[in-house]
Amino acid sequence: MQRSVKAYQVGSTPALRTMKNNLGNYTHQVKDPERFIRFDLTEGDCWFKDQVADWFKEINIDDIIHYPDERIIKTKKLLARWLHMKEENIAIGSGSDELIEMIPNIFIKPKNKVLTVSPSFFRFIESSLRAGGEVATTRLDGGSGFEWSNKTIKRLIKKAKDKRVKLIWLASPNNPTGIDIPKHLLSEIIRLGKIVILDKVLNGFTKELREASQLIWNNPNLIVLSSFSKTFGLPGLRFGFAIGSADMIKKIESQRLPFNVAGPTLFIVEKLLLSLLGNKIKINDGLKFIEEREFLKREIDQLENIRLASSSITNFILLKSKERINLFSELLKKRILVTNLNKTVGIKNKNFVRLTIRDRKQNRILLEALKEIDNHFH
Amino acid sequence: MQRSVKAYQVGSTPALRTMKNNLGNYTHQVKDPERFIRFDLTEGDCWFKDQVADWFKEINIDDIIHYPDERIIKTKKLLARWLHMKEENIAIGSGSDELIEMIPNIFIKPKNKVLTVSPSFFRFIESSLRAGGEVATTRLDGGSGFEWSNKTIKRLIKKAKDKRVKLIWLASPNNPTGIDIPKHLLSEIIRLGKIVILDKVLNGFTKELREASQLIWNNPNLIVLSSFSKTFGLPGLRFGFAIGSADMIKKIESQRLPFNVAGPTLFIVEKLLLSLLGNKIKINDGLKFIEEREFLKREIDQLENIRLASSSITNFILLKSKERINLFSELLKKRILVTNLNKTVGIKNKNFVRLTIRDRKQNRILLEALKEIDNHFH
Repeated sequence: MQRSVKAYQVGSTPALRTMKNNLGNYTHQVKDPERFIRFDLTEGDCWFKDQVADWFKEINIDDIIHYPDERIIKTKKLLARWLHMKEENIAIGSGSDELIEMIPNIFIKPKNKVLTVSPSFFRFIESSLRAGGEVATTRLDGGSGFEWSNKTIKRLIKKAKDKRVKLIWLASPNNPTGIDIPKHLLSEIIRLGKIVILDKVLNGFTKELREASQLIWNNPNLIVLSSFSKTFGLPGLRFGFAIGSADMIKKIESQRLPFNVAGPTLFIVEKLLLSLLGNKIKINDGLKFIEEREFLKREIDQLENIRLASSSITNFILLKSKERINLFSELLKKRILVTNLNKTVGIKNKNFVRLTIRDRKQNRILLEALKEIDNHFH
Repeated sequence: MQRSVKAYQVGSTPALRTMKNNLGNYTHQVKDPERFIRFDLTEGDCWFKDQVADWFKEINIDDIIHYPDERIIKTKKLLARWLHMKEENIAIGSGSDELIEMIPNIFIKPKNKVLTVSPSFFRFIESSLRAGGEVATTRLDGGSGFEWSNKTIKRLIKKAKDKRVKLIWLASPNNPTGIDIPKHLLSEIIRLGKIVILDKVLNGFTKELREASQLIWNNPNLIVLSSFSKTFGLPGLRFGFAIGSADMIKKIESQRLPFNVAGPTLFIVEKLLLSLLGNKIKINDGLKFIEEREFLKREIDQLENIRLASSSITNFILLKSKERINLFSELLKKRILVTNLNKTVGIKNKNFVRLTIRDRKQNRILLEALKEIDNHFH
């Protein structure tokens, strides 16, 4: 049940090309993404976008004509207040993506192993291999909708006890399954003492993120990742952050390029954090997607040949079609771009696709297309 | 005369810390940079900043609430038109800094050597070491104001012929000397066939940058770097680019994180490029700093214990003080932050400092401080 992914040499371009082709990298799926309705990117819905546009009108031009503060201290102070943490516990990245790229470079040496589950976010494997590490994965059980079970945790822990395993990547909610890891299972993993990277970008809302962050006080081996891309629907800003013990964060900061986040991004993030702290922007107002998700789920449940493959709690859903239907290609013909997971470790060539929930208008277009495909293969 | 810098292991944090301490990294020079007048960052002067502020008022919110185009195609098309190049010849970075970090990771394998001159930009050495390469440097002659000479070029070429040398870093104008490399000497280096990275960030104005870029048609081993930080005085945007043969650029693009540049940055850069193409913003209007540089030079020429160490043609100057004066600390006492070059390879512990030219008001404050220091040590 356990799978190993071959390790590639650092800096070896052909190997990295092979790796990208084999890991289900789902950017660059088509040459002309602008020609499609895009359900492929896990963007959240920005419910306060008029406010964001207004903030840009007030932009402080000093943030553009000067280099950003190399320590990003002002933004960190606000973020720390919002998270109930200290500045020394926060590192800031150009999206969580940059942090995912940096972390294995810092903590993994060649021949070290990293461990993750499958299916999970392809970037965990990609960046680990690029850092020269070896990757092992424990498979989640598709038959049970990819939910965590005692069996899964036992297998993961057995594998994690290998001395060569230095780092464990976990996304919660997981991508592309959309499922949270139960707290007691997470605790079991953290207790192993390996470096655990907990990716919380998919429910980086105050409560869930704060709860996860509090764990770092007793667990200096834990790093929590989040960003403003999904929760706040602001992926264009490229703003992510890592929360960890002062020691861990210091290591990340020492490798971070001093000016990794653009001035306009920091300006808007600060405006947003002040509004959150002042309760002028309310997280609860951003939960409209839940209603849309449940609407989509109900409709998809009516289909014959296409089914929901997991009980996602986040802003995307996972679908599976019968073997004779290549759902990705069929949707593509209808100008709909979803995420093709046929190369994703753990669910290869099984016709899984991931779809981000959009607004009712776009969701109806999607449903129409799914129904047509479903009927066509009747 | 030639120096080698010890290679460090990839991913080794203590080694990288040592490296940073020894390479003259001049960010994080003080804990509280905001308390000083900053002459340390080589920022250009943005002569059209009111226009930039106006553009932000018109920002397209779609560029913020969605992921940026993973291929950055719109920006590349405009940049290609401005440079008289093709899109396939351009890779875009979060500042040229990100490209400097990526390039050795792509082209250097462990035990490969990189070659540069000393003094030069510390980041060339830092990123090469971090990629696992070894670094060799050829010293420029301080006695001749760090100008390129036939002697220097002979020494560099001799060193470059070592088969292990895969990559040569050159900044022109050089940082921190501010001096251009003569065209015929540059041609000699390029003809060696090693990968040559020519950093043009310091005169990325149309004419000079275009001339350098044209060289790539006949020299597929050349990569030219530039950015919007110095020429346009927009370092807060974090926008840099590499120009090279389609093959070289493809290699860089295959390693670039898909969303490395923020949406607001791309929006403003596109506005600026359209204005440049439409001749609404004129490069010549940005040359006020030359007058200021000559003013500063004339005044500094009057000092006894502090002298100009090179004939910089760019927006900073290089100063050297007599041994008993620690110019960096003396200026710091007067709340002026300059770049301490006492750790820079090639000019270690020789009281060199670099100062960026600011406006007349700030330059007068600087001159006043320099005069006081000069008198104090009379």
